Parts: sequence; structure tokens; C-alpha cells
Amino acid sequence: MATLTVPAHVPTPYEDAEQLKKAFDGWGTNEKLIISILAHRNAAQRKAIREVYTETYGEDLLKSLDKELTSDFESLLVLWTLDPAQRDATLANRATKKWTASNQVLLEIACTRSSHDLFLARQAYHCLYKKSIEEDVAHHITGDFGKLLVFLVASFRYEGPEVNTTLAKQEAKILRKHITDNACNHDEVLRIIATRSKTQLNATLNIYNNEFGNAINKDLKSDPKDEFLRALRSTIKCLTTPEKYFEKVLRLAINKTGTDEGALTRVVATRAEVDMKHIAGEYQRRSSIPLEKAIVNDTHGDYEDLLLALIGCENDA
Amino acid sequence: MATLTVPAHVPTPYEDAEQLKKAFDGWGTNEKLIISILAHRNAAQRKAIREVYTETYGEDLLKSLDKELTSDFESLLVLWTLDPAQRDATLANRATKKWTASNQVLLEIACTRSSHDLFLARQAYHCLYKKSIEEDVAHHITGDFGKLLVFLVASFRYEGPEVNTTLAKQEAKILRKHITDNACNHDEVLRIIATRSKTQLNATLNIYNNEFGNAINKDLKSDPKDEFLRALRSTIKCLTTPEKYFEKVLRLAINKTGTDEGALTRVVATRAEVDMKHIAGEYQRRSSIPLEKAIVNDTHGDYEDLLLALIGCENDA
Repeated sequence: MATLTVPAHVPTPYEDAEQLKKAFDGWGTNEKLIISILAHRNAAQRKAIREVYTETYGEDLLKSLDKELTSDFESLLVLWTLDPAQRDATLANRATKKWTASNQVLLEIACTRSSHDLFLARQAYHCLYKKSIEEDVAHHITGDFGKLLVFLVASFRYEGPEVNTTLAKQEAKILRKHITDNACNHDEVLRIIATRSKTQLNATLNIYNNEFGNAINKDLKSDPKDEFLRALRSTIKCLTTPEKYFEKVLRLAINKTGTDEGALTRVVATRAEVDMKHIAGEYQRRSSIPLEKAIVNDTHGDYEDLLLALIGCENDA
Repeated sequence: MATLTVPAHVPTPYEDAEQLKKAFDGWGTNEKLIISILAHRNAAQRKAIREVYTETYGEDLLKSLDKELTSDFESLLVLWTLDPAQRDATLANRATKKWTASNQVLLEIACTRSSHDLFLARQAYHCLYKKSIEEDVAHHITGDFGKLLVFLVASFRYEGPEVNTTLAKQEAKILRKHITDNACNHDEVLRIIATRSKTQLNATLNIYNNEFGNAINKDLKSDPKDEFLRALRSTIKCLTTPEKYFEKVLRLAINKTGTDEGALTRVVATRAEVDMKHIAGEYQRRSSIPLEKAIVNDTHGDYEDLLLALIGCENDA
């Protein structure tokens, strides 16, 4: 499901660190060399390279990247090189700082990561910011949105396969009742969405669909401009069909006049090692154009090369 | 700070398991032998004994204890023998099942454990009950109380020494405002209490005390019968002076006509390895009688012997 490709024979972290140093030091930076290394190492390998690099050259690799590279290429490479938990903590922290209702990064992190990975991100947040993530979310984001988010970022969902069908039926009815009453911000709605295991929630939403004739996200579109309803729909999409959620983020980012590089960068950096193949498949199905082609049309230079490398479609020409 | 005493030379888990088996098998159970072993082993040692016991005799040690022992002695020994995270998960689960407003076990677990230990309890809850703790709390406990509790059990507080004094001043004012307005269930009050690090909260409450002339818990007593205010006071006590909180639980348990063995058992089993010395000191200061004397006056038999062993005051007579 990942698109990351790692060569059969991987150099040692010492060799990789040395090559990276060379790429920075020459006459002009050698971006191709940097991509050929970092875009083809998994999280554990990148971590080892970063450690060896600091040890050997007395400078954090991320700092060297920051000094040598610029703009979107740099942002993507730094985000990609980061340890996944630190990356999530960094993205979450940025999101709490400049919150707009349409910024869904926090939802995305809370709902598409495994329970354990979300916990690792919370631990990394402690280390990086000397605070807890829920502390910042609760402090900076208010209203129903904030309530939902605090719930979501603090959750530690059960991940087993068990489904309680009686409960699913009850809770499908509860959801239906509050949606019909136009009370989608009801505590019970938030509780069910924010605490049930993804498997249990999926069962509940299937029953909802069967019993009441519509997928819940259709019923949550009564007012397409309502920001809270939009957040609820995203939450449900992230929890039940993350590949569709990410496909849409990519589609909107690419179709936007001028491209939303922030979103494109974030999705590729966070999903290349997880489920990017699935997302790219979904993209082609929905947009009738392969993701790599859309990226080639919309981006250029080293940024384009790195994106293609990470989605497993390196341009060898 | 712990009262648990472990001998200088500890037998191997194999030897301990064998002795326990002997204690169960003889003509009548040998309770003294059981106490002499289990009451003097730390969590890691008890875990090793339990593993070896299952391996060797094909039965969980806890099951053997359950078959051989009875009543309060059994309850205390089983609770004590459990791994701390499993113990917390077990106590929490019982509390979600029969909830009464005065049942403060969930608050206690959420607020007196370290962030990491609370997380371990959440993990153990997954394993034991195939659900998350916040899922059960949110499902079974409603109202302001439930809201507070979900917040608390899901928290992962930062534990560093940093204090932001500006923030502490702001939040002391926010707390004061809502308390004065009789709106102690305000989201902002819950947010501050449930998400700030214990060190930060302590600074805020010190400023509150200095600026407004009363300790916050005094101001939260406007209606002594209000259950939610009572829960808030307990929460604050658990977060800032856990030894005083536990001292009071012990005092009420012992002073009650008939003794509240459940509470006595819980506090001794959960604190003997943590801060029982501190709690016992507080008890003597507050009740003018040493805790061991109060226990001798109020309990008897093997239960008494085990309690005394765990609080480090074995009766050698």
C-alpha cells in the first residue's frame, strides 16, 4: 500500500550521511543525489541517517537541508525526513497556531493514524513543545469544532475486530435522531464518533445507511456551508475511508488555480510510507488521470522530482 | 515514599511460585506464607512469579488465590498481585459499571497516576475489555461529571517543570470569574483543570489563592451537597496534593461505622508501591493516630496482617 521504494541493497547510514554531505558541499547543491538517497529510505533508515549525520558533522541534517534547499522542495524534504511522530506533532502544532475552520490537519492526524501512532505523536508533542497537544487544541480552538477536536486528539481507540451489533443499531438510531433534529453537535453524536473503534463505527454507519436510506455524510450536508458539518463529514471520512479523504485533499490541491502545495506536500509526505498506492488508485478512478500525470502537469523542478519519487513514479528520462 | 519492603535476598520466581503452591496445597491454606511472599515483592517480581506459576502449574495465580482465599483478604491480595496497569484498568472498569456520583475511582486513577501510567492503564483496558476506557466512561456517565471524566481519563498531560506565569495569571482569573458566576461547569474551567500540566496548574492555583484570598477548593464549596463541585474538589486535590486526597479516603473508610473495606483495600493496594509513606504521615498528622494503629483497631485476621505488611508495619508478635 505504500509507494515508497527502498533499494534491495541499502548503503549504511554512514555511507548515506557522507553522500548527503557531499551533495551539500559541492559547487551548487546536488538535488538529484539527495533525492536518490532520502526519497528511498524508510522511517527507521532516515532516522539512522539523521543520527549519524549529527554525530559526524555536528549539525542536524534537517538544518543542513534548510540551509541548502528552498521553497516547496525543501518543505517536502524536511517533512518527509522527519520521524513520523515528530512530523505529526509539527503539523499539529502549526495547525493549532493558525486555525481556520477549513484547516483540517488536526482532524486528519487524529483520525487517520493508528491509535498507537497518534499516541506517539502526542509523546513527540510533549518533547518538542513542552505541552500536550490537547492542551493547545483546547486553548486555541473553541466552539463545537474545538470540542470535537479535543475529543479526537485525546482518543485512544480500541483497534480489535469485535463488533457489538446491538450497540451499533442503538447508536445508528441515536445519530439519526440528532441529525433529524438538526442537533449534530449533540454530545451523543460527538461521543459516538470520537470514542468508538473504527470497526464498530463502521458497523454503526452501515446500519445507518441500510435503515435510513442515506449514507450519513449525505445527511450531514443539510447546509453545505456549515463549517461544523463539514468537519464532521471529514472526520467520518478519515475514520472510515481515509483513502477517499486523502484523494479529495489531493484533488482539490491540484485543481486549485496555482496548486495548494501545502496540502500536496503534507499528503505525500505523510502517506508515501503508509497507503499512497491506495490513494493514487482512488485518484485515478475519480479524476480519470493518473496522479503522477497530474503532478507532472502541476509542479516542476526538484519538487516535482521528489513528489514523483515518493509516489513511486520516478521520472528516469 | 513507598511502604513496600522487599528483602535483600529475593528468592527466584520459581522458588516463590513453588512456595505459593505449597501454601495452597497443604492441610488448610497457609496465609502467613502467602503474605510473606507476595506482600514483599515489587510489581516486576510479582509479574515474574505469576508467569512462572502459570507455566508450571497450568493455572493463573490469581485464579488459585481466588479459589483458596475469601472476602477482604482475597480482594486485597488479588488487587495487589495484579500488574499496576491491569489493576487500574480493572478498577476503572468496575467504576464505569456501577456508577454513583460519589464513586471517585475514575477521577482518582486519571489524576493521581503519571501520564505514562495512565496510558498503560488505557492500553491494559483495551486488552482486558476490548474497548477503550473513554468509550465506556462517555457511554455510561453523562452530564457535567461525565464531561469532566472523559476529559480526565483521555488526558496525556505534559510533565516537565516549565511554568508559564503569564498564562497562570490569565487562567487564575478565568477560574475566578466562572466560580464567581456560579458556572463551575464552564468549558473553560474543565479545560484548564483537565489539560494543563500539574506543575502549571499548581502555579495557577497558587496565584488564585494569592490574588483572591481563598484556596480554590474553598470557593468550590459554595454548595457542599453539589456532587459536581465535590468531584471538582477531588480532582484538584488528586492533581495537586494526592497524599491529602488519599489520606481523606482512608480516614473516611476507617471512621465509617463498619469500615469501608473497598476503599481501604483500593488505597493500600494502589499506593503501597508509590507514596504510602507520605499518605501514612499525612494520616497521622490529621487523625493523631498512626495509620497502622487505626488499621489494627478496625480490621482483623489475614486481612489485617496483609494491610500491615503492605504499609510496612508488619506485626511480628
